[in-house]
Amino acid sequence: MDLKSRIQSLAKNQFEEVKGLREHLHANPELSFEEFETAKFISKTLTDWGIDHQTGVADTGTVVLIKGKNPDKKVTALRADIDALPIKEQNEVPYKSKNEGVMHACGHDVHTSCMLGAVKILNELKDQFEGTIKVLFQPGEEKVPGGASKMIKEGVLKNPEVNNIIGQHVMPLIDAGKVGFRSGMYMASTDELYLTIKGKGGHGAMPEQNVDPVIISANILVALQQIVSRHASPKVPSVVSFGKVIAEGATNVIPNEVYIEGTFRTMDEEWRAEAHKRMRKMIEGMAESMGATADFEIRKGYPYLINEPELTDRAKANAIEYLGEENVEDLDLWMAAEDFAYFSQATDACFYRLGVRNEAKGITSSVHTPTFDIDPVALETGMGLMAWLAIKELESK
Amino acid sequence: MDLKSRIQSLAKNQFEEVKGLREHLHANPELSFEEFETAKFISKTLTDWGIDHQTGVADTGTVVLIKGKNPDKKVTALRADIDALPIKEQNEVPYKSKNEGVMHACGHDVHTSCMLGAVKILNELKDQFEGTIKVLFQPGEEKVPGGASKMIKEGVLKNPEVNNIIGQHVMPLIDAGKVGFRSGMYMASTDELYLTIKGKGGHGAMPEQNVDPVIISANILVALQQIVSRHASPKVPSVVSFGKVIAEGATNVIPNEVYIEGTFRTMDEEWRAEAHKRMRKMIEGMAESMGATADFEIRKGYPYLINEPELTDRAKANAIEYLGEENVEDLDLWMAAEDFAYFSQATDACFYRLGVRNEAKGITSSVHTPTFDIDPVALETGMGLMAWLAIKELESK
Amino acid sequence: MDLKSRIQSLAKNQFEEVKGLREHLHANPELSFEEFETAKFISKTLTDWGIDHQTGVADTGTVVLIKGKNPDKKVTALRADIDALPIKEQNEVPYKSKNEGVMHACGHDVHTSCMLGAVKILNELKDQFEGTIKVLFQPGEEKVPGGASKMIKEGVLKNPEVNNIIGQHVMPLIDAGKVGFRSGMYMASTDELYLTIKGKGGHGAMPEQNVDPVIISANILVALQQIVSRHASPKVPSVVSFGKVIAEGATNVIPNEVYIEGTFRTMDEEWRAEAHKRMRKMIEGMAESMGATADFEIRKGYPYLINEPELTDRAKANAIEYLGEENVEDLDLWMAAEDFAYFSQATDACFYRLGVRNEAKGITSSVHTPTFDIDPVALETGMGLMAWLAIKELESK
Amino acid sequence: MDLKSRIQSLAKNQFEEVKGLREHLHANPELSFEEFETAKFISKTLTDWGIDHQTGVADTGTVVLIKGKNPDKKVTALRADIDALPIKEQNEVPYKSKNEGVMHACGHDVHTSCMLGAVKILNELKDQFEGTIKVLFQPGEEKVPGGASKMIKEGVLKNPEVNNIIGQHVMPLIDAGKVGFRSGMYMASTDELYLTIKGKGGHGAMPEQNVDPVIISANILVALQQIVSRHASPKVPSVVSFGKVIAEGATNVIPNEVYIEGTFRTMDEEWRAEAHKRMRKMIEGMAESMGATADFEIRKGYPYLINEPELTDRAKANAIEYLGEENVEDLDLWMAAEDFAYFSQATDACFYRLGVRNEAKGITSSVHTPTFDIDPVALETGMGLMAWLAIKELESK
Repeated sequence: MDLKSRIQSLAKNQFEEVKGLREHLHANPELSFEEFETAKFISKTLTDWGIDHQTGVADTGTVVLIKGKNPDKKVTALRADIDALPIKEQNEVPYKSKNEGVMHACGHDVHTSCMLGAVKILNELKDQFEGTIKVLFQPGEEKVPGGASKMIKEGVLKNPEVNNIIGQHVMPLIDAGKVGFRSGMYMASTDELYLTIKGKGGHGAMPEQNVDPVIISANILVALQQIVSRHASPKVPSVVSFGKVIAEGATNVIPNEVYIEGTFRTMDEEWRAEAHKRMRKMIEGMAESMGATADFEIRKGYPYLINEPELTDRAKANAIEYLGEENVEDLDLWMAAEDFAYFSQATDACFYRLGVRNEAKGITSSVHTPTFDIDPVALETGMGLMAWLAIKELESK
Repeated sequence: MDLKSRIQSLAKNQFEEVKGLREHLHANPELSFEEFETAKFISKTLTDWGIDHQTGVADTGTVVLIKGKNPDKKVTALRADIDALPIKEQNEVPYKSKNEGVMHACGHDVHTSCMLGAVKILNELKDQFEGTIKVLFQPGEEKVPGGASKMIKEGVLKNPEVNNIIGQHVMPLIDAGKVGFRSGMYMASTDELYLTIKGKGGHGAMPEQNVDPVIISANILVALQQIVSRHASPKVPSVVSFGKVIAEGATNVIPNEVYIEGTFRTMDEEWRAEAHKRMRKMIEGMAESMGATADFEIRKGYPYLINEPELTDRAKANAIEYLGEENVEDLDLWMAAEDFAYFSQATDACFYRLGVRNEAKGITSSVHTPTFDIDPVALETGMGLMAWLAIKELESK
Repeated sequence: MDLKSRIQSLAKNQFEEVKGLREHLHANPELSFEEFETAKFISKTLTDWGIDHQTGVADTGTVVLIKGKNPDKKVTALRADIDALPIKEQNEVPYKSKNEGVMHACGHDVHTSCMLGAVKILNELKDQFEGTIKVLFQPGEEKVPGGASKMIKEGVLKNPEVNNIIGQHVMPLIDAGKVGFRSGMYMASTDELYLTIKGKGGHGAMPEQNVDPVIISANILVALQQIVSRHASPKVPSVVSFGKVIAEGATNVIPNEVYIEGTFRTMDEEWRAEAHKRMRKMIEGMAESMGATADFEIRKGYPYLINEPELTDRAKANAIEYLGEENVEDLDLWMAAEDFAYFSQATDACFYRLGVRNEAKGITSSVHTPTFDIDPVALETGMGLMAWLAIKELESK
Repeated sequence: MDLKSRIQSLAKNQFEEVKGLREHLHANPELSFEEFETAKFISKTLTDWGIDHQTGVADTGTVVLIKGKNPDKKVTALRADIDALPIKEQNEVPYKSKNEGVMHACGHDVHTSCMLGAVKILNELKDQFEGTIKVLFQPGEEKVPGGASKMIKEGVLKNPEVNNIIGQHVMPLIDAGKVGFRSGMYMASTDELYLTIKGKGGHGAMPEQNVDPVIISANILVALQQIVSRHASPKVPSVVSFGKVIAEGATNVIPNEVYIEGTFRTMDEEWRAEAHKRMRKMIEGMAESMGATADFEIRKGYPYLINEPELTDRAKANAIEYLGEENVEDLDLWMAAEDFAYFSQATDACFYRLGVRNEAKGITSSVHTPTFDIDPVALETGMGLMAWLAIKELESK
């Protein structure tokens, strides 16, 4: 039996077990950086399977090294995130969250259980490949600054040195059994913008005695459109949006200040840094030029996520070999953020999507909604493909 | 004894009585259109003095006709407003408001008591002049649509037909004993602006799926500066201010709509009407041009107040004769509104300011503040001058 | 015969002579600061009349002192401007300009001839008044920095010290025989604005490589509306207009810079200075905040012209006495500039308008047009009234 | 000898001949739709080689059908454009343009000669492949509406029905011997924008009497930034630039109108159509909302060029097989336009870049410059690769 068939067979055999793991995780979700029971559960599962692992990485993270023959030849890492969201589940299922107000609404229970399944397969097949597979169960993806950068700081990409890393994420737009890839830039950096324009309030009938923050901030919001329309390259997806504007005066009362919140997202770290500077310069310079002052804070979120083209092209080709051409899609750009991006900034990375949709069964809810769920068939695809991609990547030069 | 001396003497003699009337009114303030006890007090005072009058005009208003010789020759009207404000008085004085939360903080108690004093003088001197003096105690100046337009609708400027009208108002910027005049345009029309820009909210990272009311409303606020900077004549004082802007989204959530409040003030009724049309056209047209819609409401306040130049020049000259040149000042334009403006739209009108300040005594608070008060000396000036101006105006052709 | 009748009679008798003077001046116009023949003609006329005078003041200006009895009591100055405009006359009249391309299209020929007529009257009546009348024939009104400031620097308001000054100017909106007055602010300061926004040009398809001066300058022009709409007091007439904008790129070529010209006019010297600073700060600050630079030049023109209220009220009352109430109008504000404004900044001043219109005769053209002309009847009014106002002003305390 | 080796060998052997063809074409350039001699030269060359062809397609175009075995199996088209530019050549080379002011500055001489070389190879190897290769020598690429749409209208994609099409274009950023590919969207649609904002001119000091097109157009230019910043998807490259703005008034003269030119480029035909509507609505709506009118003309240029992903992935893989991985690059997006886009709208298409740079020889000039030239080595790569890609594409299912 060839490797592909063996992996497919193992994944099939493990399906019910991994489904049970997923349902346990789903029923017992924990918030970012508080994944204490989740970590224990991962550890206990691995221990039950007789697989060595290191706990307490970035507090609640876990690392597994699966060494093949000639383990120093090459190291490929696999990553699964383990935390849940502060959402109250509305699904009436046996494995419904027991931790009210917390829910695995972003599928990290799926990522974790698939990864456990992949670990079990890879451990079984470790005489079949050369090199080492380093598996990361990462905490705190949902909360800035995220567990990825924390794990990197604690050295998970070193000892042994990782050559590249692969991660997967559920996607309710893709049918269960299928996956999606995109080479090159894929997800956006996300920064929150907090802006207060401070003028001098007073009576609306005496504008000459005021510094009107309402009109000054309107001019600034209008001028900031240039960040996207004039300063960004048309080739680099960029968006600046402002959702909150609060000027609390009255018909005839100019307020002292206007408070504004917004977001900036893009797909190029150099341009991102330049855009931050440009926004600051434009906001502070315009406010001052009109007699006001500006407090401008940028709360930096995750960086831009890039899928290294050669790694991703190989992974896609391997996925086609494993799943068939009809089950591998091309992905569009995604303007959301993901802290796997830190790995993509640190080494060659590939982040792909695992289909979980089943329209016939009514499984179509978006992530981050209280009715999100998956077709469990995806678990078999997810664990098998992950194991397959890891071994095939080790085989490539 | 000449007429001026007689009036000055009568005013001096009545001073304590009128001061008592003012203090009674001050202690018993009533809100706009609820001046029931005030009206009774005016009526009782006139009855005590044996002066005929008509009550119940515009509900709580009172009209007195003082006929001189040859009463049909000419009719000059005098106006005093009688209502108080919803302000809690902070003055610790024997005549402090007994009606908690209501206060004569705009000096209408002064206007009313001075007018009563003037009526008594004029009644005494009615064999000294030809023509008729029609005295109006007007309710509800502080609340749109105001008592002035109501009295006019009930016909107070007819039967007998009024030739012109004079009103006075306290001014804490002018020392007691002095008065101020301005010929031509004097006070502003005031309209309240209520604007909702309705777009289509959504995620800040997907602007192409939204109609962003934040940036659309910023463009509109910026463009509306043209109402003053490009469409108003530089010769006509005009102001458009927006004090409230509420966009209740979040950093990454574009809201469905933005709510805005503002004020428009100017000094020309034709331009005011044109400006209303222009603002509507610009707001609705711009919103539509950007894919949004606009709800725009203009709540019309009082019109523009113009002092008829010839009447005002005569009144000023007469005031100089009565008070001396050193006690008559020129007034600046005032961007606030006053419902006496309705009289100025209906007939020749003169609205002048009565000084009430006394810095040595610490009497300097602005109107509409909880510590507003007057130097009572102003009462003698106010009642005497009003009587003098009325008779002198009847004497002019 | 009373003074008024004597002046009226003298003006009537001199009419044909003064009309001849005006026609000579009209036929021989000279540009600003080149009024050599005009100055000689004024001097020769005065010499023919036996009136002492000083020539060469501010090069081509002339000063006449007419001393009454007790000459040190008070000094009132009268001013006439003498220069013409670079306009080609289109009137076919016997006194048509012989100096092609130069024309008295602003009526300075009228001002000069009326003033000569007034000098002759005043010289005749110098035993009828106390004090001194100082007459100024001023060059170069049409060309910045103007002859007024030059004459002031050369000391024409001193030795003897001038108490106040009166000037008159033709107005084709007022019928000949009538005049107009306005107390307080009357004409505007005028400054020219020259602005170049310097960015970095390039291909329109690569905005990230350019600094786009087109959009930056559009933002600045839009933001500058605030100078009038937010920073000027609604009570002070102000206007900022930009008439020229040149961006010389192409459909797909962003130019390096945008060139802009405009005007700023207002009626308050303190605000004018502040507005200059605000415009500079806003333009330079906004350009810099967007990565560009701005060259901004303000070419200061004449200051704001204010008619001192007491002097002007007296002059208007005196004009009513001389011409009758029906022949004296109130003037509106005028957003144009006039270098008489320098006199109004230096001493009490009154600048009034002399009607020259005669619709029946088709005399209605505006000043500064090639068909401007006057009804000569205005000359009789102009010379007589000027003489009358001067003597009456000396009579006032 | 395998197919690859045979093609490489043929290309090598033909090199001098094809170099001669290219130099002849370079020396005799003709402008778009005037390629009469060029067409004759192509025809004569093909005739000399004994290859049947059809002339006069789209006037000066030529079509060659090279039928393999089983010619109906599949049809792949190849395209070369043949026209030159109105540029005066500055290269001092033996093959310098003899047609002064006209130059092959965009490399169409290279495209044409490579295609002739490929035709000769393919004709030689027609027993080696199944299916038909249809070769298009296309006129008028440089001039809207371009020769591509004209050829399509004349039916070149039918009889026999073309399955897909491949084109190549020189690129001075890539070294000779190498090529570049990009899957998916690649080049932009390009539309020219012509805009006149018509207001009502007049004196800058009387804005209330004008409709100021300067400030209205500034507001519109500023608001149009939203097309890119708010209405375009961040995922679709889009640019709106305005390079020309002409307002021909003066410091104090508001002109009647402002004339503006710009460009709009994007990479999505649906969005392009929507953007046209949005720009029109915004421009016309804003102008009207401010009392002006707008004349807005969109001169549509070439559509957006998309490289069909599967065809392009195959072509790239085939190029790697032919040239080696080190000689095949990934291309960035290109915001310029190319009329090959019409083919990409009509059928599956792949447009790739042929490296022509040789820094050591100083060959680095950009296309559309008077010093553009190529390293002739590129000709061997270009003709061989084109022939190889065509045969390999016919071999794929």
